[in-house]
Amino acid sequence: MNAVRQIDEANRTMTLEAGVTLERAQQIAHQYGLLYPLSLASEGSATIGGNLATNAGGTQVLRYGNTRDLCLGLELVLPNGEVWSGLNTLRKNNTGYDMKHLFIGAEGTLGVITAAVLKLFPAPVDTLTAFIATKDLNHVVQAFNACQKQFDAQLTAFEYISPNALNLVCEQFNYLHPFADEPQAHVALIEISNTSTQADALNALHQSFHSHISSAIEQGHIRNAIVAQSGAQQTQFWRIREQISAAQKRVGKNIKHDISVPISAIAEFVKITCAELELHYPSIEPTIFGHIGDGNLHFNVSRGQAFADANALMAAETDINQIVYIQVQKYNGSISAEHGIGLLKRDWLEVLKSPVELNLMSIIKQGLDPFNIMNPGKILNQ
Amino acid sequence: MNAVRQIDEANRTMTLEAGVTLERAQQIAHQYGLLYPLSLASEGSATIGGNLATNAGGTQVLRYGNTRDLCLGLELVLPNGEVWSGLNTLRKNNTGYDMKHLFIGAEGTLGVITAAVLKLFPAPVDTLTAFIATKDLNHVVQAFNACQKQFDAQLTAFEYISPNALNLVCEQFNYLHPFADEPQAHVALIEISNTSTQADALNALHQSFHSHISSAIEQGHIRNAIVAQSGAQQTQFWRIREQISAAQKRVGKNIKHDISVPISAIAEFVKITCAELELHYPSIEPTIFGHIGDGNLHFNVSRGQAFADANALMAAETDINQIVYIQVQKYNGSISAEHGIGLLKRDWLEVLKSPVELNLMSIIKQGLDPFNIMNPGKILNQ
Repeated sequence: MNAVRQIDEANRTMTLEAGVTLERAQQIAHQYGLLYPLSLASEGSATIGGNLATNAGGTQVLRYGNTRDLCLGLELVLPNGEVWSGLNTLRKNNTGYDMKHLFIGAEGTLGVITAAVLKLFPAPVDTLTAFIATKDLNHVVQAFNACQKQFDAQLTAFEYISPNALNLVCEQFNYLHPFADEPQAHVALIEISNTSTQADALNALHQSFHSHISSAIEQGHIRNAIVAQSGAQQTQFWRIREQISAAQKRVGKNIKHDISVPISAIAEFVKITCAELELHYPSIEPTIFGHIGDGNLHFNVSRGQAFADANALMAAETDINQIVYIQVQKYNGSISAEHGIGLLKRDWLEVLKSPVELNLMSIIKQGLDPFNIMNPGKILNQ
Repeated sequence: MNAVRQIDEANRTMTLEAGVTLERAQQIAHQYGLLYPLSLASEGSATIGGNLATNAGGTQVLRYGNTRDLCLGLELVLPNGEVWSGLNTLRKNNTGYDMKHLFIGAEGTLGVITAAVLKLFPAPVDTLTAFIATKDLNHVVQAFNACQKQFDAQLTAFEYISPNALNLVCEQFNYLHPFADEPQAHVALIEISNTSTQADALNALHQSFHSHISSAIEQGHIRNAIVAQSGAQQTQFWRIREQISAAQKRVGKNIKHDISVPISAIAEFVKITCAELELHYPSIEPTIFGHIGDGNLHFNVSRGQAFADANALMAAETDINQIVYIQVQKYNGSISAEHGIGLLKRDWLEVLKSPVELNLMSIIKQGLDPFNIMNPGKILNQ
């Protein structure tokens, strides 16, 4: 279950069995000078099958989409024991219902994915990595929109780090704060990528990024910026972003929310939700970070000053979830942007999804898995 | 049914009712300095609802995807009369089965789309348009791969025009053949786009394209190239591509095939299929053009020298379809890349799709539309 079935370099596809790890999939693409862009903290152990079953996201969704968008075809074992060989390698195929999308993100409740055809992309030759500091989250969103407008698909990542999150990760791992004299800055990690092999094109993109940043500083849209000067520094910048979860773990339990809202609503959602939480739990300090370009924030609440101990925090979990999810719903957001439903959020799904949509999902589940033998109890309460 | 429900500039989405024409949708995006990238010959009359029901393709799929990829949410009337308000505006939402993908491309057989949330993109500021001439289709595919590797998402179109197709359209509409002394050249129309507003970045991309083409000519990969020198000339280049179908219509009936194969198999598929056709119908001259980057060719057979008159051509239709579709199947291709199934290809679907997949489609149809009242008889024979 972890064989490489086919690499088609000129078609930019690879067909892998479900047990191949994401890291190996990336390496296989790399051997052909191509890119499999899915990128997650757990890529060393996460498998292609798992990525597909959960429609995994990660840091490159802004440019390349979710796992769903990277998949052209699936091979599955269906609940009735039949094998569907849907290993389509085509970019365009309008012959009937697109069945693969039903199984991607279904968390194994409709069938078992055994192999998949994945899209490959030209590998970036050069990458530019920078931190920018802004006054508030509103300015981070504005900076994102300006950056995307200018660099379009060459903008491959735009990650937000709140002051709390940045201070925490720097303290816990002894990292230098990138803007040491602005500990209250709202920071974004920006990555610009270029596939061109021509020196002039590479230089032009660097100059273009520098001009873009300089003029944003002049106009007061952002306060400061640091561009990584070496590959080692790029790695260090990314490590700060990627270690936030580990830093949170070090200081004890926390209540995680993997939410999304429209990009236009991010700043207001955070402001209102923090105010609501503060009202009930004075001195609460959510640790917020995530993928601004996808409208996806990790909105995590740890003990901080607001709770006497970890037990007090965990006792408030249901209430805190409720406060956060009610705001998510108010802003037409999602209570699970990239982590799925599983068991933990199943009851919330029943409350927040419309009865019409829940019924559609039930019809599908009952039609394909009438005896409820595929990962029973996950997503749907049946 | 043709109202604009919402434009969310900072979220890069617009929510339109299904009756809005594609052309109007493009204009609405344009008013906000944004791009709705779907582009079709019939955009003046085609509607958003129709685009979604058929998962329409067109010339910009290479960069922006099919209609499916441009849609974040749907509002539908279901067969039981209920309305599903699935107007999701989020880039990431992993809460259960992704129902919208079932209705997109279902040709109205599962429900009636009444509104949709569509993605918007930064609008290109500058576009570079060029024709290249190569020795054969194999070299066109190689040129595509080299171009995509270099320019990645800035390569927004790469359209193939066979010698037959180019000579026909130039004759019928009195266009200048772009390579008049090479009437047997296999030609591609290339478009490179840039969203940058900085003059240096624009110049660098132009220089980069020129160097790319010069070195491809030096290395013998391509024979010749012409870069459009003005907006008027760009329009003229595109007109040649877009008028091929009209030119075919002028010379009488033809048998159309909207097929796709893996990009790596295009050249061999065309060679073998033409040879098979020639064997049965000497002097047959397929007119071939299409979207190389999507593996999607329009493989059309008109009367030419091979048939005494239009009746003789049409009498051979079933046989010619069979010859083409058998090769499509051999190369793991699709008999409908972007035009759908409808009634015309329904019987072919039954022959070419696996029984397992046909059964999956039937389960969905029966579950959602048990009385078969939604566009009955289309896609599925029930």
